[in-house]
Amino acid sequence: MATIAFIGLGNMGGPMALNLVKAGHTVRVFDLNHDAVHAIAELGALPCSSSCGAAAGAEVVITMLPAGKHVRGLYLGEEGLIQTVADDALLIDSSTIDAESARVVAEAAARRGIEFVDAPVSGGTAGAAAGTLTFICGGSDAGFARARPILENMGANIFHAGAAGAGQVAKICNNMLLAVLMAGTSEALQLGIHNGLDPKVLSEIIKVSSGGNWTLEKYNPCPDVMENVPSSKGYQGGFMVDLMCKDLGLAMQTATDSHSPTPMGALATSLFRLHAAKGNGKRDFSSIFEQFAHQQEQ
Amino acid sequence: MATIAFIGLGNMGGPMALNLVKAGHTVRVFDLNHDAVHAIAELGALPCSSSCGAAAGAEVVITMLPAGKHVRGLYLGEEGLIQTVADDALLIDSSTIDAESARVVAEAAARRGIEFVDAPVSGGTAGAAAGTLTFICGGSDAGFARARPILENMGANIFHAGAAGAGQVAKICNNMLLAVLMAGTSEALQLGIHNGLDPKVLSEIIKVSSGGNWTLEKYNPCPDVMENVPSSKGYQGGFMVDLMCKDLGLAMQTATDSHSPTPMGALATSLFRLHAAKGNGKRDFSSIFEQFAHQQEQ
Amino acid sequence: MATIAFIGLGNMGGPMALNLVKAGHTVRVFDLNHDAVHAIAELGALPCSSSCGAAAGAEVVITMLPAGKHVRGLYLGEEGLIQTVADDALLIDSSTIDAESARVVAEAAARRGIEFVDAPVSGGTAGAAAGTLTFICGGSDAGFARARPILENMGANIFHAGAAGAGQVAKICNNMLLAVLMAGTSEALQLGIHNGLDPKVLSEIIKVSSGGNWTLEKYNPCPDVMENVPSSKGYQGGFMVDLMCKDLGLAMQTATDSHSPTPMGALATSLFRLHAAKGNGKRDFSSIFEQFAHQQEQ
Amino acid sequence: MATIAFIGLGNMGGPMALNLVKAGHTVRVFDLNHDAVHAIAELGALPCSSSCGAAAGAEVVITMLPAGKHVRGLYLGEEGLIQTVADDALLIDSSTIDAESARVVAEAAARRGIEFVDAPVSGGTAGAAAGTLTFICGGSDAGFARARPILENMGANIFHAGAAGAGQVAKICNNMLLAVLMAGTSEALQLGIHNGLDPKVLSEIIKVSSGGNWTLEKYNPCPDVMENVPSSKGYQGGFMVDLMCKDLGLAMQTATDSHSPTPMGALATSLFRLHAAKGNGKRDFSSIFEQFAHQQEQ
Repeated sequence: MATIAFIGLGNMGGPMALNLVKAGHTVRVFDLNHDAVHAIAELGALPCSSSCGAAAGAEVVITMLPAGKHVRGLYLGEEGLIQTVADDALLIDSSTIDAESARVVAEAAARRGIEFVDAPVSGGTAGAAAGTLTFICGGSDAGFARARPILENMGANIFHAGAAGAGQVAKICNNMLLAVLMAGTSEALQLGIHNGLDPKVLSEIIKVSSGGNWTLEKYNPCPDVMENVPSSKGYQGGFMVDLMCKDLGLAMQTATDSHSPTPMGALATSLFRLHAAKGNGKRDFSSIFEQFAHQQEQ
Repeated sequence: MATIAFIGLGNMGGPMALNLVKAGHTVRVFDLNHDAVHAIAELGALPCSSSCGAAAGAEVVITMLPAGKHVRGLYLGEEGLIQTVADDALLIDSSTIDAESARVVAEAAARRGIEFVDAPVSGGTAGAAAGTLTFICGGSDAGFARARPILENMGANIFHAGAAGAGQVAKICNNMLLAVLMAGTSEALQLGIHNGLDPKVLSEIIKVSSGGNWTLEKYNPCPDVMENVPSSKGYQGGFMVDLMCKDLGLAMQTATDSHSPTPMGALATSLFRLHAAKGNGKRDFSSIFEQFAHQQEQ
Repeated sequence: MATIAFIGLGNMGGPMALNLVKAGHTVRVFDLNHDAVHAIAELGALPCSSSCGAAAGAEVVITMLPAGKHVRGLYLGEEGLIQTVADDALLIDSSTIDAESARVVAEAAARRGIEFVDAPVSGGTAGAAAGTLTFICGGSDAGFARARPILENMGANIFHAGAAGAGQVAKICNNMLLAVLMAGTSEALQLGIHNGLDPKVLSEIIKVSSGGNWTLEKYNPCPDVMENVPSSKGYQGGFMVDLMCKDLGLAMQTATDSHSPTPMGALATSLFRLHAAKGNGKRDFSSIFEQFAHQQEQ
Repeated sequence: MATIAFIGLGNMGGPMALNLVKAGHTVRVFDLNHDAVHAIAELGALPCSSSCGAAAGAEVVITMLPAGKHVRGLYLGEEGLIQTVADDALLIDSSTIDAESARVVAEAAARRGIEFVDAPVSGGTAGAAAGTLTFICGGSDAGFARARPILENMGANIFHAGAAGAGQVAKICNNMLLAVLMAGTSEALQLGIHNGLDPKVLSEIIKVSSGGNWTLEKYNPCPDVMENVPSSKGYQGGFMVDLMCKDLGLAMQTATDSHSPTPMGALATSLFRLHAAKGNGKRDFSSIFEQFAHQQEQ
């Protein structure tokens, strides 16, 4: 069992840290939100009054923050974590941020001889609570080898995508493609519906044909085709449009930085932003399906 | 065993008709290309000198033609098949054509009280030869019930998508989505490559994540990630760009006719046409992958 | 002064025919709608009971119909206009239809040695009433030379785009580009607004810069930037979204027929269809501007 | 006449600074490239050995740098220009950078009570040499009033787009729309060509119709339609594809930051990146026209 600092106790970070507590680790926690700290402290974590305080002397430091600027701000600089943690600490950042920030922090860590692993997650708050998250990691083989058993306390699938930043890149490649699948599947189903087809029948046919994809298997966007998916529950729960838009923004930034043409991803980005702009930001992302419907004349 | 007229003996129709011969049916064949007729006649089919001659008295008539105008021309009119076939003949059109033409022919057949089933196929020339095609059918339950055992001589998966025209609609919904998957997967993999990731590793991760889709399972567009797929054989064989463009043209026509917004499908159409316009029409459609690569400066 | 048959007296055809009456021509009119025939007959046109009756013996026949199938139906066949008009009649079709239909009719006319000019219009019902329409013509030099003085009674700008069908092609090229300009200008203005800019100031800058285009000059889509445009009158009047969608459908069909990649036009088509699908079909097409706005959360 | 520091003497900055020299100002210059400093020093500018040295005591400081990070690096921080210039200095940044960086620098300047104007330019190296650039400015009325007479020594059109950052926003709105116009006009002309139209005739018709835009007026992308434009000179000179891609990257970043849907701009971005990826980065941006052509089969 290890001494682990966990910084960032939001909707995702809170239940992730709790799974580390349950696994028997000593977990030192910090968040700017005191209530979040108290809540998990009552369940066995050790509350700290600062991120540096939590990280001081810890064997492993895990961070779960909103954006690249927060990660840079916490790790870099004279009083940043990289300078203040123990010599042999392992740093794991599970935030979903731009790959460039992940690389910059990893390089700073390397200059001090410390392992840094970028390990963004997917699986949502349900996966965080259940300990079934997917982690997609970037970093050295040695760093990944050390991170893996820790991450297994919180997740069911732990991938090593490549060197520093590769975890972030792989995650946004996946999520950009997911947005393409969801928008493309939605408009294909609607095209069938507009031409008199039953979406259940059409979904069954495509699912086992060359149009088959994850959304048809697990997350059909058409209401009442599948049970227990957001589309059959008023598009509540699941993965919010605003979060998909955030990930797509990161994908577009990565594409710009590497001069990569991503026409399908860019169009999906526009479609999800159009959807968000109409007031759907807090609904599940499969609600994009509604955009392709024929509505009544106003 | 039935007496079956088979009209249209091209790259697909020829081997399909042969599978009916092998199954023991009496197969009466016609094609404007005499060589095609002779070739299959030597293998047991009965050569006919006209389509009406082949169809006269047949229990089942199967057609495999290039486009909607050929299907309309053959079936409709005073001397068309619908007027000249036996009263209880079953008509099956396996051409991939516009849904509107399929519906018009089906209505004409219904007026004479004859069953017409639109049954476009997927699976390519290899599937036609092996008898493992997928048929996606539109028509009445009774018509489908009669067509199914015949189609099973030529295919492995026989779907009933709905009423007349539904086979054509379901097929182009599937193929439009396939084009979206292939373009989207290609650009996601290239985005990873441009950022230093190994496409094999990235493919493995996405395949089991929410970006998973048929192209990653069966038809990876990146050379040397999978064996025995077109991308690993110089993009030869498989499904030609020109044929994908044909299907996408039908999808766009169907979308126009039903006033359906299909932004992802429309963009994929443009991308495949751009690819074809650069001289790639005869290559496998997964070669769209190359469009997203960084090439040398000229 | 000529004897002119005018067939098709809708919102556009009616006022166009009236301008021919006012110019002193003998105008023989027909429409399936009896009221439309009576209305213009009271203003000096000669009512006819059939299209062939109107056209018999006329020096010029002008048609204004909804779609290519109506034009083919009226002109082609054994009892079509091409067979029944006088030997030296000039045929002018001002319908906006697919180029392929225009070419087919022109070829049939040529086989009988008759001049046929496709002459679609732009300028809307206001232009039809005022006699300030734009005609974009396809046909031989001789045919255009004969058509021009007739068309000048109804329009202010008469263009000769090329051979048969070229009028239809040029019109849909223009209108496809117009859709691109309108959507592109709308999102550029909204991007400015979202970043705190005054749309009047931004419009003034772009109008005289390299982003300058017809929509900023004559038809600004942002309310209250210009006076007397649809955007400043609740998006009433002007050019309906449904009509733009019709023209874009023709553009997409032409692109499919000539294997032309038109990514920007295809995306504009999708955006206008999405807009129509939300109940905006009867509003002016510049209302696409609203799609790019940030709305309140639901 | 003023004492002006000019920092950044590249292809644009060099001739701009020279125009200030010619106008009689005392111009103190710095660039990391010594040759650039020497070249303009021989023409009357005063060479300096550092940016701070150049700026010390100057009444006006003008910067012309590659990207936002350079501008932030030069202006911000304890030894940045904002802390080291005279109390009443006017700061003008003519770099084309992200609006966020412009706002951050302007806010830092405001905290010291110094006027900062973002003033990106368009017009290219020819406009820089001829003193006919367009400046699009953001900043206070007072700052703009002071900047205007200085900028008039280098440009023909000086716009005030709004508050700090508005110059950058307005420029990228314009250039994003320009990319849309160029791609859209190119595909519309090619669609006409594929259907047999003469691009000169088609250009003339659209130019005076509702598809009219700057590219048809001044910069027709089809070779040999206009004289003295890049398309008629092998797409040499003009505005490089790589620079258009840079501006489009800034537009996409601004759109992401303000959650703005920009589907047409995002597609144009993808198309120009696809074009650049094929080795066309150094050619004029109107060469995108070639992408829509039908080429020979390989």
